Amino acid sequence: MERKRIAIVGVGLIGGSLALQLNEKGLAAGIVGVEANPDHAAKALEMGLVDEVLPLEQAIEESDVVILCIPVDKMTGLLPKVLDRVSHQIVLDAGSTKGQLIDAVKEHPRRGRYVASHPMWGTEYSGPAAAVKHAFENKAVVLCNAAESDADAVSWVKNAFQKIGMHLLEMNAHDHDLHAAYVSHISHITSFALANTVLEKEREDQAIFELASGGFESTVRLAKSNPSMWVPIFMQNRENVLDVLNEHITQLRKFKACLEKENYAYLQELIENANRISRIIK
Amino acid sequence: MERKRIAIVGVGLIGGSLALQLNEKGLAAGIVGVEANPDHAAKALEMGLVDEVLPLEQAIEESDVVILCIPVDKMTGLLPKVLDRVSHQIVLDAGSTKGQLIDAVKEHPRRGRYVASHPMWGTEYSGPAAAVKHAFENKAVVLCNAAESDADAVSWVKNAFQKIGMHLLEMNAHDHDLHAAYVSHISHITSFALANTVLEKEREDQAIFELASGGFESTVRLAKSNPSMWVPIFMQNRENVLDVLNEHITQLRKFKACLEKENYAYLQELIENANRISRIIK
Repeated sequence: MERKRIAIVGVGLIGGSLALQLNEKGLAAGIVGVEANPDHAAKALEMGLVDEVLPLEQAIEESDVVILCIPVDKMTGLLPKVLDRVSHQIVLDAGSTKGQLIDAVKEHPRRGRYVASHPMWGTEYSGPAAAVKHAFENKAVVLCNAAESDADAVSWVKNAFQKIGMHLLEMNAHDHDLHAAYVSHISHITSFALANTVLEKEREDQAIFELASGGFESTVRLAKSNPSMWVPIFMQNRENVLDVLNEHITQLRKFKACLEKENYAYLQELIENANRISRIIK
Repeated sequence: MERKRIAIVGVGLIGGSLALQLNEKGLAAGIVGVEANPDHAAKALEMGLVDEVLPLEQAIEESDVVILCIPVDKMTGLLPKVLDRVSHQIVLDAGSTKGQLIDAVKEHPRRGRYVASHPMWGTEYSGPAAAVKHAFENKAVVLCNAAESDADAVSWVKNAFQKIGMHLLEMNAHDHDLHAAYVSHISHITSFALANTVLEKEREDQAIFELASGGFESTVRLAKSNPSMWVPIFMQNRENVLDVLNEHITQLRKFKACLEKENYAYLQELIENANRISRIIK
């Protein structure tokens, strides 16, 4: 696979981790960063995530591949402008929602140069200092509406994600956004809400966290996630997230009803049903 | 610290992990297991967690310390019977709820021999094969109502938990059960309910788990936990768990209202508030 000159727009957790992996797998003939936050730009250079930081226009001009790794609200504004400036370049993104982004460039004359993708990896941290080596290995990457992209662009993107160790899934944007609401977005809402539940209690009982152990950490760690990433995701995937959130509250109310009515046989059944998740997560 | 002959009643995840740690730290002059499940008994012997498996009465007779590591419903029944049979022995437990257990022996003539304790560690797995080395290191252990226990018993228990690497907390059973509801029991309910939410969706959409990644795993891993351990915990801590569950549903409904009303400024605020959990979990 020929090395490409790659521009990464947004050198944070995702952009930075991608840079590490693209370099390690020999996919990049130089990586240019585009970064609005001067502290992040300096850190990305210092860490060697990127070779230089350039303004967007110049970065596009000097690259073969442009990867957008910015919050999804900024992405829907920026993607059409990026496509305005590309000729031969391949453009892809790492956004957590796909519907609005694809709609934003549906009629764009350069639509074919864009490959909508979502590498399914992240942590609750953000910024270039949070970048992780080998981050995407053995994770899924979803390509959406690939038939609307040029064949050469899809081919390079597929190869690149496979080289960095990901397995490919293809689906339309609608299905992606629905599935992501169920297996990613709702987890963040439950975690934020759980953190708020216990933090609220802390106002009257300051020792409430003394007993917190591994189980608690596991269920609230996502509550550390950055609102500037997550508010736009919830905005763009509002209807799906609301549906799942309603279902989740319904499920919680079943546990509540069991306790209120002291119906422990049904409580046992609910937990046994939940245990079937072992089939999915090892 | 003089080595003691120790009986562990219930050689599963907790009993087995305690056995490993008590042996490693040189606290045990032999460990006897008491185990109703013959497969677990055989496995515990095979793994060398215990030196022999004996009936309860004989195990108590031949030991200096008796540690109960069985589900909390079985424990409230068994603890008075164990105290009926002890003379010099120290009895402690590893149960996740404390109120009902302490009440069950309040008037027992041997109450002083019992030290109510809750080492705050566990995983979503169960049985002796799930036992983990160094499991309790750097975790908290709570001693409840220690003033009701004999001084020599409390002293040995404190020393033993410190030797296996735990830090001690003391509180009354009421506070323990309230705190445990907030930082342990509710995490399990949210995890069970989240698993059921997505498993329900899987009935109509079998590919729903294809995108599941680390964040999802983290928030649902507790959903693999054993109902025979957790139903009794929820029964015994019913009122506290109901209070926290109601508060948690209230918090979730705030997220729902933000999305319904498209009030993204308040959504941002809710998430920023949740981010304060970073102060608690690293």
